[in-house]
Amino acid sequence: MADAPALAAIGDSEFDRDTAVVPRPGEPGVYDCALSGGWTIIAAVNGGYLLALVGRALRDALPHGDPLTITAHYLTPSQAGPAVVRTEAVRTGRSMSTGQASLYQFDAEGREVERMRVVAAYGELDALPGEVRTTARPPRMPAYEQCLSSADGPEGGPVSGSQDFLDRIDLRLDPATCGWAVGAPSGRGEMRGWFGLADGRPHDALSLLLAVDALPPTAFDLGLKGWTPTLELTVHVRRRPAPGRLRVAITTRNLAGGLLEEDAEVWDCEDRLVAQSRQLARAPRG
Amino acid sequence: MADAPALAAIGDSEFDRDTAVVPRPGEPGVYDCALSGGWTIIAAVNGGYLLALVGRALRDALPHGDPLTITAHYLTPSQAGPAVVRTEAVRTGRSMSTGQASLYQFDAEGREVERMRVVAAYGELDALPGEVRTTARPPRMPAYEQCLSSADGPEGGPVSGSQDFLDRIDLRLDPATCGWAVGAPSGRGEMRGWFGLADGRPHDALSLLLAVDALPPTAFDLGLKGWTPTLELTVHVRRRPAPGRLRVAITTRNLAGGLLEEDAEVWDCEDRLVAQSRQLARAPRG
Repeated sequence: MADAPALAAIGDSEFDRDTAVVPRPGEPGVYDCALSGGWTIIAAVNGGYLLALVGRALRDALPHGDPLTITAHYLTPSQAGPAVVRTEAVRTGRSMSTGQASLYQFDAEGREVERMRVVAAYGELDALPGEVRTTARPPRMPAYEQCLSSADGPEGGPVSGSQDFLDRIDLRLDPATCGWAVGAPSGRGEMRGWFGLADGRPHDALSLLLAVDALPPTAFDLGLKGWTPTLELTVHVRRRPAPGRLRVAITTRNLAGGLLEEDAEVWDCEDRLVAQSRQLARAPRG
Repeated sequence: MADAPALAAIGDSEFDRDTAVVPRPGEPGVYDCALSGGWTIIAAVNGGYLLALVGRALRDALPHGDPLTITAHYLTPSQAGPAVVRTEAVRTGRSMSTGQASLYQFDAEGREVERMRVVAAYGELDALPGEVRTTARPPRMPAYEQCLSSADGPEGGPVSGSQDFLDRIDLRLDPATCGWAVGAPSGRGEMRGWFGLADGRPHDALSLLLAVDALPPTAFDLGLKGWTPTLELTVHVRRRPAPGRLRVAITTRNLAGGLLEEDAEVWDCEDRLVAQSRQLARAPRG
């Protein structure tokens, strides 16, 4: 392979630049940042991107480096532009610490408006014992080369709007979960795909927070169209992912009361379950 | 059936009395309460009981009555005795509101020590649209009469300590998930059972918070012994349960890095999925 482009590195990539947080001098635990417009999908900044950014502020504020379990409540829609993260160290232990954070943007008068609230437990993934006992199996899906990118689809998706997010990621969907793009959803409520960052940045705990919320909503596979806003998203990061592309499998089993859950599993190329997530979202009305 | 004992009612039952919270005069959002020793299992106050109590304070503090999604981080071990819940209304919307709460007890000097931190979105279950589209199926398990109570087991469980909690609940386990009690765990990481309150109180959203954390840990079915402390528990309440006993099915798929997830589903007697939960817990060392 000649002239393969140099891959971005953890700490020096689009994702890292766009999730940068700057400690505010004299205000411990407060971080200024700018939400990038590059992670916008349809009309909203992607929720996984926001979670990764807040997760990065918490990583700086807490004595431990990796989110083991992190929950976000999405309160008001975020927009590209300046923002501030206010963190609180709730409890600091030897092997684990608990923190809370809020992401704010500003109204026309410059007052802070809360966008999301996050509570998380941090630890050190590399310090966890190595034993694994699992009945979970990686999703069965075709090789990356047999999967479909957004460029393979017809013009225009089920929802119109910004597709900037898709330029930042390297997403190939299992054709079995792509029928919705041509008007033939499977009805099973599944979405599967290979996931990477477009610039080749390897994965870490923070990019896993992006991975769990990067695929099209399972509601599309149920034949629904329109926006599926996340109310709450919880991610368990179970292992540091090995270098290489991730496989993400998302399932919705129960749509009821206008709400649905989305359960995601993320697998690395060594067939290890590296993250599990569940979100509660509003079902589209379509 | 002659002389059936009168059943307790929602609002007038052991569970309601033991989760009572009293607004502190002059301090809006602050609630005094007493953690009952009656919900202690082994050496700890049951985590679902604590969540129900904090959930009740949030119900009082917020304009909506039912937790739709609620997350708790367990910080330090709770003990029977006085406690205080401090709530914050994070965001109040028309159909939904978001709140936060912390449960505190007191050290020897009377200083508040935080036991748990909770974030939740509340709504009105009865106001949600009625449409249901689901692929989830109730657990296959024997009838209540064919399931086993703790009185059917041998003396002493895999962990010794208080069994007071078991007197408050009406729990019958599927024999297929009881092998651990006689030294023959299935190894599948499953736990299933019928769940009610001992005094017959019907279920509501708050008692569902108890139901998801009331069965023995799935770690027992994996052949592990010892304490499985919950780090984080998230519950989605999806419907108001119909009167009658609940079925609870819990599964652990992945034990890794000394941590395991427990996924619970709660079904009512009309075969409706009324709650889903996931917790991250420390695996026992045994």
